Amino acid sequence: MLVWLKGYRRAWLAGDMGAGVVVAMMMIPQGMAYALVAGLPPVAGIYASIVPPLLYALFGTSSTQSVGPMAIISLMTASVLAPLAAPGSALYGVLAAQLALLSGLVLLACGLLRVGFLANFFSRPVMNGFTIGSSVLIAFDQLGTLLGARPPHWHGPSAALGLGALALLVLARRYGARLLQRCGLPPTAADVGARLAPMLLVAGSIAVVGALGLERMGVRVIGQVPAGLPGLHLGVSNAHWQELAKPALLIGFMCFLISMSGAQALAARKGEKLLTNAELVGLGAANVGSFLSGGFPVTGSLSRSAVNFAAGSNTQLSGVIAALLLGAALVLPTGWLALLPLPVLSATIIVAVLGMLEATTLRTAWRYDRADALALLATAGGVLLLGVEAGVMLGLLLSLGATIWRESRPHIAVLGRIPGTEHFRNIERYDAETRSGVLLLRVDAGLFFGNVEAVTAHVEEELDLHPGTRELVLVLSAVNAIDTSALFGLLELNGELVRRGVRLHLAEVKGPVLDRLKQSSLLERLSGQVFLSTANAWNTLSTGDESWSV
Amino acid sequence: MLVWLKGYRRAWLAGDMGAGVVVAMMMIPQGMAYALVAGLPPVAGIYASIVPPLLYALFGTSSTQSVGPMAIISLMTASVLAPLAAPGSALYGVLAAQLALLSGLVLLACGLLRVGFLANFFSRPVMNGFTIGSSVLIAFDQLGTLLGARPPHWHGPSAALGLGALALLVLARRYGARLLQRCGLPPTAADVGARLAPMLLVAGSIAVVGALGLERMGVRVIGQVPAGLPGLHLGVSNAHWQELAKPALLIGFMCFLISMSGAQALAARKGEKLLTNAELVGLGAANVGSFLSGGFPVTGSLSRSAVNFAAGSNTQLSGVIAALLLGAALVLPTGWLALLPLPVLSATIIVAVLGMLEATTLRTAWRYDRADALALLATAGGVLLLGVEAGVMLGLLLSLGATIWRESRPHIAVLGRIPGTEHFRNIERYDAETRSGVLLLRVDAGLFFGNVEAVTAHVEEELDLHPGTRELVLVLSAVNAIDTSALFGLLELNGELVRRGVRLHLAEVKGPVLDRLKQSSLLERLSGQVFLSTANAWNTLSTGDESWSV
Repeated sequence: MLVWLKGYRRAWLAGDMGAGVVVAMMMIPQGMAYALVAGLPPVAGIYASIVPPLLYALFGTSSTQSVGPMAIISLMTASVLAPLAAPGSALYGVLAAQLALLSGLVLLACGLLRVGFLANFFSRPVMNGFTIGSSVLIAFDQLGTLLGARPPHWHGPSAALGLGALALLVLARRYGARLLQRCGLPPTAADVGARLAPMLLVAGSIAVVGALGLERMGVRVIGQVPAGLPGLHLGVSNAHWQELAKPALLIGFMCFLISMSGAQALAARKGEKLLTNAELVGLGAANVGSFLSGGFPVTGSLSRSAVNFAAGSNTQLSGVIAALLLGAALVLPTGWLALLPLPVLSATIIVAVLGMLEATTLRTAWRYDRADALALLATAGGVLLLGVEAGVMLGLLLSLGATIWRESRPHIAVLGRIPGTEHFRNIERYDAETRSGVLLLRVDAGLFFGNVEAVTAHVEEELDLHPGTRELVLVLSAVNAIDTSALFGLLELNGELVRRGVRLHLAEVKGPVLDRLKQSSLLERLSGQVFLSTANAWNTLSTGDESWSV
Repeated sequence: MLVWLKGYRRAWLAGDMGAGVVVAMMMIPQGMAYALVAGLPPVAGIYASIVPPLLYALFGTSSTQSVGPMAIISLMTASVLAPLAAPGSALYGVLAAQLALLSGLVLLACGLLRVGFLANFFSRPVMNGFTIGSSVLIAFDQLGTLLGARPPHWHGPSAALGLGALALLVLARRYGARLLQRCGLPPTAADVGARLAPMLLVAGSIAVVGALGLERMGVRVIGQVPAGLPGLHLGVSNAHWQELAKPALLIGFMCFLISMSGAQALAARKGEKLLTNAELVGLGAANVGSFLSGGFPVTGSLSRSAVNFAAGSNTQLSGVIAALLLGAALVLPTGWLALLPLPVLSATIIVAVLGMLEATTLRTAWRYDRADALALLATAGGVLLLGVEAGVMLGLLLSLGATIWRESRPHIAVLGRIPGTEHFRNIERYDAETRSGVLLLRVDAGLFFGNVEAVTAHVEEELDLHPGTRELVLVLSAVNAIDTSALFGLLELNGELVRRGVRLHLAEVKGPVLDRLKQSSLLERLSGQVFLSTANAWNTLSTGDESWSV
């Protein structure tokens, strides 16, 4: 907690202050825009940009992470709340904050339980598919606001403003940095400067609307933004805990995945180590903070964090400064914001989310592992066709299904002895000798519920191929673990082999595995013996196979 | 398809006919009872016991499986339909059949796509926890019907009938077989005979209600059962496809798991092989058949299948005979069933579901692997507190989470050379030599999204422990696969090591893994080389570590 503050050096201050100013300027349009995506009044996005980063700075370990509203999490928030309350209603705002509270508690609990390994639940292609699906969904949803009417209709002045803003933003994204470099800025500063285009556009569009009186021509504007800091907010709706519980699990999970994937990329570039469980606590505290200040679920935003990094942030202080500046902006008069046209905010959203798209993952996966590419496309399609929650679940199941599938057919080798030695090798690869009546099988994977059926079926097939077998030795040198399901599988295999008149032996059982097996009834019930080495088993069983019968 | 019929021997007929009669007599009370659990009129349970087993016999591969209504699937059906329609309404019946259709299509699709490995998705402790939670939930739900009023109230005559039936059934379960053996029946026949207690009780209770006029005293009876075979039923509700789609996935999945776990146990005892994908098709066809005859989702029932087996069934013909007998029962007058008291049906449900409880799995897991025991308890608790759907999802995530967790920290060994040989071994276990500047790391697991972060973090830690390292060799002799996420991880590791002034080499890459890596940019971008053997790497790098610098 606050590790960065203890060793703070004065030399870092300039970088942190500069980055703080830049991030604050990015946050004003982004916060308001993502509040709109979440179905909330724009000021909620500013609220969610003040307390959360302060709390993240207390507990989090990334020096560059910018915590606050984020497009995909806002989309998930809207999709959870839409069936429960009308957007814009007081209940909707209460439920949004409550969802942040629950998501925060989920994250805090995961951090305190130290289950940060959960970040490994999504494969990279599935995460990429999820991002693509969500981005397209968000962009598509914004078309109506961009054009001022539901497509295929449009409202002339709104569409002109929106499409104009879209064109300017795309141009700024593509040529802004180059232009600023030509004007004499060093490359990094030019990159950062180009990122401020949305803020400039917001200011410019307010001036245009004011000068031309566009709001009287039907262009929708955000209207009065209440001045003053957010008050302490403790309202919850008792009726909706249950409906929010499951979505909060999913949102907490996605907050963590999104935040970690961005923060890790930047941490690698700074040679910084992130503490996964501290990150969970930091994000959890940030979301609880968002609840307390009347916000909605928040997470680390890669686009802002990357700018924070490029703008010279050295420690979490830059995030603290950005938050304080946003607080200050709310204390100053906010009347000038009222004429901010919604089509322009929509344009910033569309450019931001389409900027998250990248084709490298799909292209690489398509060439390298077609199944991963299909999982990516299925997840993207799932988000688009079934919605964002179903998309997350589909992504989870595809990632995990791939794992189970990969593990469901472990390699099993028939072993023989290299003549004249005590070495035992796969008879398909080596010229190794076997003895009739004795079958040595080496299982090359840990045994667990996902493969135990396949292993026992495979063992029985090998017995069918070697009909004279009386002694079966499972060589467990590569088996690091045997779970409860596999234990039952081995007990059943033992019984089945007794019915077939075959004894089951184990060899080369690893120490920790054997210790655990001693806690079960397998070793007592085993029809054969446990051998220290395969050579022991070979020598003992080759001489004595007449001595035992059913 | 119909493989069993081709080789049918006349000697099997007696066993199949006897077993068919017994199963039909079990199915009458069970079918009606589980229809009540599903919130449907009792006759729907008989309908669901006729066409489904006939279709299963066409495609399925288990000779003993009795397909029809099953308690847990009925509970899932009720929990899906409760928010959509009022139990007893026409819409409710239509939706129940539609749910069977969708579940059947899910099963058929899985069978045709040959994804039977999905049966491996649930660990045995989690499946046991799910069964325990569901059984307790069903039993608890029946208390009101058993007592004739919502507890803590009761309706005297109903409670007397219900509790009396409960006591008789418990006694029959515990002592029935023994009693019949004393009366001279052979043990197997006595076991089967004891299983007919519910049918006898149903007949007896109808007589009691009729004689004492209990239905006029407020004891609820099932009322008129419409005579005649079910007609072809094609009604669906266009409004509810979407609400039923996700539950149908879960129900299809559970149908398969429940059916397979029972069928496999019996198949092992008969030395029979089940074809997983044919089972999926058989169950799918059965559910589509249930839809067509106005039923609800069905699956294989272990209790009936075990009786079918014990009663001497030789082939699927016993199931066909049972189905035909039930059809005949509907053609005969059904008026006598009208006075069947609901409290007695409730008693048969309670005894049947509590009979599914067993403590062996929990006891074994508690001693053998505490984490598995906790997963069992969490799943049971999840079903009871969050509901049956959430329980399935929780079970899935716990099973899969355990897999990811187990795999998330693979073993990584630092290798050294056994002096004077070309063998390389873990330096912690062998007296092996190392050379400064060269670090050999062997990764003992396939690389995939679940462990690639842990592996790269571990590699960097080893570099911190060996600060003079200039050449890092990853020995991939135990790596059977590298997925797309891990490919990106290796690319990032390569970049990170270049920044640190360390070259990354690979050694002993397996053929299929190398073939796949050639489809990616890793081999071009690799700062070091790919060596055939660790010895090659050692010999090449030990002499040349001055030749390269960042």
